[in-house]
Amino acid sequence: MPTRYPFPELNTLPEDIKAKVLEVQEKAGFVPNVFLALARRPAEWRAFFAYHDALMLKEESGNPSGSLTKGEREMIVTTTSAANKCLYCVVAHGAILRIHEKKPLVADQVAVNHRKADISPRQRAMLDFAMKVCLQSDQIEDADFEALQAHGFDDEDAWDIAAITAFFGLSNRMASFSGMQPNPEFYLMGRVPKPPKAPQPV
Amino acid sequence: MPTRYPFPELNTLPEDIKAKVLEVQEKAGFVPNVFLALARRPAEWRAFFAYHDALMLKEESGNPSGSLTKGEREMIVTTTSAANKCLYCVVAHGAILRIHEKKPLVADQVAVNHRKADISPRQRAMLDFAMKVCLQSDQIEDADFEALQAHGFDDEDAWDIAAITAFFGLSNRMASFSGMQPNPEFYLMGRVPKPPKAPQPV
Amino acid sequence: MPTRYPFPELNTLPEDIKAKVLEVQEKAGFVPNVFLALARRPAEWRAFFAYHDALMLKEESGNPSGSLTKGEREMIVTTTSAANKCLYCVVAHGAILRIHEKKPLVADQVAVNHRKADISPRQRAMLDFAMKVCLQSDQIEDADFEALQAHGFDDEDAWDIAAITAFFGLSNRMASFSGMQPNPEFYLMGRVPKPPKAPQPV
Amino acid sequence: MPTRYPFPELNTLPEDIKAKVLEVQEKAGFVPNVFLALARRPAEWRAFFAYHDALMLKEESGNPSGSLTKGEREMIVTTTSAANKCLYCVVAHGAILRIHEKKPLVADQVAVNHRKADISPRQRAMLDFAMKVCLQSDQIEDADFEALQAHGFDDEDAWDIAAITAFFGLSNRMASFSGMQPNPEFYLMGRVPKPPKAPQPV
Amino acid sequence: MPTRYPFPELNTLPEDIKAKVLEVQEKAGFVPNVFLALARRPAEWRAFFAYHDALMLKEESGNPSGSLTKGEREMIVTTTSAANKCLYCVVAHGAILRIHEKKPLVADQVAVNHRKADISPRQRAMLDFAMKVCLQSDQIEDADFEALQAHGFDDEDAWDIAAITAFFGLSNRMASFSGMQPNPEFYLMGRVPKPPKAPQPV
Amino acid sequence: MPTRYPFPELNTLPEDIKAKVLEVQEKAGFVPNVFLALARRPAEWRAFFAYHDALMLKEESGNPSGSLTKGEREMIVTTTSAANKCLYCVVAHGAILRIHEKKPLVADQVAVNHRKADISPRQRAMLDFAMKVCLQSDQIEDADFEALQAHGFDDEDAWDIAAITAFFGLSNRMASFSGMQPNPEFYLMGRVPKPPKAPQPV
Repeated sequence: MPTRYPFPELNTLPEDIKAKVLEVQEKAGFVPNVFLALARRPAEWRAFFAYHDALMLKEESGNPSGSLTKGEREMIVTTTSAANKCLYCVVAHGAILRIHEKKPLVADQVAVNHRKADISPRQRAMLDFAMKVCLQSDQIEDADFEALQAHGFDDEDAWDIAAITAFFGLSNRMASFSGMQPNPEFYLMGRVPKPPKAPQPV
Repeated sequence: MPTRYPFPELNTLPEDIKAKVLEVQEKAGFVPNVFLALARRPAEWRAFFAYHDALMLKEESGNPSGSLTKGEREMIVTTTSAANKCLYCVVAHGAILRIHEKKPLVADQVAVNHRKADISPRQRAMLDFAMKVCLQSDQIEDADFEALQAHGFDDEDAWDIAAITAFFGLSNRMASFSGMQPNPEFYLMGRVPKPPKAPQPV
Repeated sequence: MPTRYPFPELNTLPEDIKAKVLEVQEKAGFVPNVFLALARRPAEWRAFFAYHDALMLKEESGNPSGSLTKGEREMIVTTTSAANKCLYCVVAHGAILRIHEKKPLVADQVAVNHRKADISPRQRAMLDFAMKVCLQSDQIEDADFEALQAHGFDDEDAWDIAAITAFFGLSNRMASFSGMQPNPEFYLMGRVPKPPKAPQPV
Repeated sequence: MPTRYPFPELNTLPEDIKAKVLEVQEKAGFVPNVFLALARRPAEWRAFFAYHDALMLKEESGNPSGSLTKGEREMIVTTTSAANKCLYCVVAHGAILRIHEKKPLVADQVAVNHRKADISPRQRAMLDFAMKVCLQSDQIEDADFEALQAHGFDDEDAWDIAAITAFFGLSNRMASFSGMQPNPEFYLMGRVPKPPKAPQPV
Repeated sequence: MPTRYPFPELNTLPEDIKAKVLEVQEKAGFVPNVFLALARRPAEWRAFFAYHDALMLKEESGNPSGSLTKGEREMIVTTTSAANKCLYCVVAHGAILRIHEKKPLVADQVAVNHRKADISPRQRAMLDFAMKVCLQSDQIEDADFEALQAHGFDDEDAWDIAAITAFFGLSNRMASFSGMQPNPEFYLMGRVPKPPKAPQPV
Repeated sequence: MPTRYPFPELNTLPEDIKAKVLEVQEKAGFVPNVFLALARRPAEWRAFFAYHDALMLKEESGNPSGSLTKGEREMIVTTTSAANKCLYCVVAHGAILRIHEKKPLVADQVAVNHRKADISPRQRAMLDFAMKVCLQSDQIEDADFEALQAHGFDDEDAWDIAAITAFFGLSNRMASFSGMQPNPEFYLMGRVPKPPKAPQPV
């Protein structure tokens, strides 16, 4: 389908956005489409990536000693994005999940059915909570937090799980509504023994 | 229920957040709970309000000549937050909607059933699009954009509607999961002839 | 929208209906629209209000020593009518709920999400049962009655909760299908310190 | 399962209810359980059967010149009661439907899938409207009335269809919640060439 | 409606199919429509009936010592076919269910609401498992097998329940999509004291 | 999770099944788990693969001149299996889809959201029909066939689409209920330039 929201030219972007785009390109070898798709709205772009980094980069997050690994954060994104049927996020974050977890099969597994995935019981509990925030947030109750605590997740971890789910619910809706397509590079990343480079985590 | 995520003390907050909280209090006469509830995570707080302002304050938005009024933006928030059963957002943004639209009944109407609300056909089309982004974003197609165009909404307006819906989908999940309660002041605002002051729009 | 089912002229109504309409007007200061909307079908009107009174006026009900207060009956109506997205009943009965419970915020709370409302655990159990009768009556089982009993509701109370839910399920469908609008007076009732008069409970 | 709400003894019933029960027994050869199940609450019983007669007995209804036949009224009941999974109403009203329509197969057909039933296009439109009132009454719009008009149903007929659906939605919930069982006699009625007698239509 | 997929002439069918059709006709007194409806695709026909017999004829099945009776197998078919709203299978297999269980009411009961049917707790557990395989197979977990074991069903019985449900999910979709109608003979079978003959179980 | 239904030893299998397993292993380089998982029930195994071949091998099918390519058949399987959240079928048939269509990205696309996949309008119509058979087979109507005809699919093609969807609905339920896992080999097949060998299409 023709693009309803074409990407802006790199040279027309504000300096901070342009710099970030070039940095990502340097690291990953290509520019993930979300960086260009949102750039047509610079204020939204800045808020989006600030939010992303506050949740996904553990060391910069509001819970730097939290128990969620980078891979687990991506596992939440992949699973809930599949529930929202968001092609961009399932493919792009599935790639990063494979790389961080060093498990080439796990992304496809959680995207299709997290109940059948080869993950730990702790990760299963994490994804059950995330799926409830994704699909029935109005019904979250004390019992849901207790199910997390049984696996060592405290209330700050619960906040991380919920906030990642909520943020990517936003991302899923923006990508789906606007027809954002994943870069072809993402589909194969982390599936073959040696990925060329560490990708940019968005 | 006891608060799982207590509000931080004002004096413990970073200066920029503290300043914003005091400014809001000055304007509205009270501090909407979302400003304190999210403040325990400063980086998330900053991203959240930056995103909010980029979407809700038309003059600062990425579409300053867009056709959505402030009241219509709040109408989208109230309607989709009701679909997500988010108590905080329905009550708080319903208040702001009443004030901006100068219609004391409209917030309750769109929260219960936007199809029965006393709104224009253009606003009805706007809300139909927003509800589809809220509940079935994977199924948005060209026909949905065409239904908007029939009422004078262009693709930038569509982006505004979708982005507001997506952002408050995030907000709804954060408020519901964490048990955020609306301030009592919101419930009555805009219902009686003279509200005391213009509220802070969050 | 134009009225598909216009109200009959007061003078064309049968005497008993006319007398009741005037009595309600005297008490409440206005005639709630449901009294006129249904009056075009006198036999249905009489059955409807007889059923209403048998369920909502405790002293005239089949369970005069039951434990549901008038406010709790209205709480059931408001909550389940919101699940059915019935504008008339949420607004009109929300008003009466606020007055009987003397809690100006509770109607908006249960209408948006009864799980987040400031109500007692007993009222929460009552509303959980009502919502199951409203949305999944085919799945009601012994465990649902036991959950009520744990809060002191016996089988006659359970009948009251179910019958009120079932009756207003009828009312919701009639109001929604026919486009019945709540009187503007209802929206503000019970929100401000001194409501002008006791309203007619329909 | 043991009966949670046992039937009252006939002799303990108020005279008017007792008289009606005996009359029904005389006509049908047995007492349909709904007459006894609801009799424990006389005021509710009277309202229920008054409402029933106002909708189902065309000559006593508010639309005596309406176009719905008795059989079509029962067809609406059977179809929507199946959507609500109400055993009592599907079996009891399916029996009366077979008798009135003189079609021994039609009740099973509409109960399983009205789209595959051997009915007229007009009846199909009638049932489509009824099913929308039953399951999505908040979404009824002008187009739904127009679809009826294309088959000769005017707004009074639409009211009949909606009111019958709404009333039996009440009946379905009462029967399901209380465990009301259909009398064994209903299952076979209208299936064999000569039913013994005309049944009582409830 | 006109038949989109007309039945082939008996004489045009391959010998093995023709022989089976004649055998069924001899036994049941008529040819159940499924035998002719699928015969237009001989290879599919053969696989379909081979699969059917492998599941429904206990002595020929992969679990000849399993605990499911023939009646219980038909009970699974009738219940799950009703969930899929398949007219052919509900009517045809409801007939066979009545005959095998010698209970003229049970088919209508499980088709409308298996929770209200006059069946044993063991059969209720069997149907709960079948309904989960029918509607939420992705969510089957250990607890579902344990609920079966509590009633004496081992893992081979669970396989039987699941496979029967899965196979008739196929059958339901074929019948509904192609407009297959049940033979009129099925509607009355097993309802009256003496059915003329044992029917062919498809 | 431990295997509830362990695979039988190859040497214990009937000769015909053993021969087929060895043939598949020779062709594909490994034995797809479905061949062993179902082999514990030989009669079911034979019917399953006979049905499979009758639908998926065009030249042996009941519609040898039909317009569905092998790749399109696999596209239907992958899309509807994702709707049923069946891990085995999405991964295994996604692999075969990539190979037949020679499009390494298409399987992930249709599995997440067929509306966003890079496929032809004709294939989109094919998948829309398949998804309706998968999820709402009771609602298939003439208009659905007409939508296919607009893209050149005749009624025999519609049968193929429906039958493939129905058969894999069976397969999905068997795989999900029994915990069947895809072979690791499938995940990468058809993604890298030269797959080692042509795989066995199940």
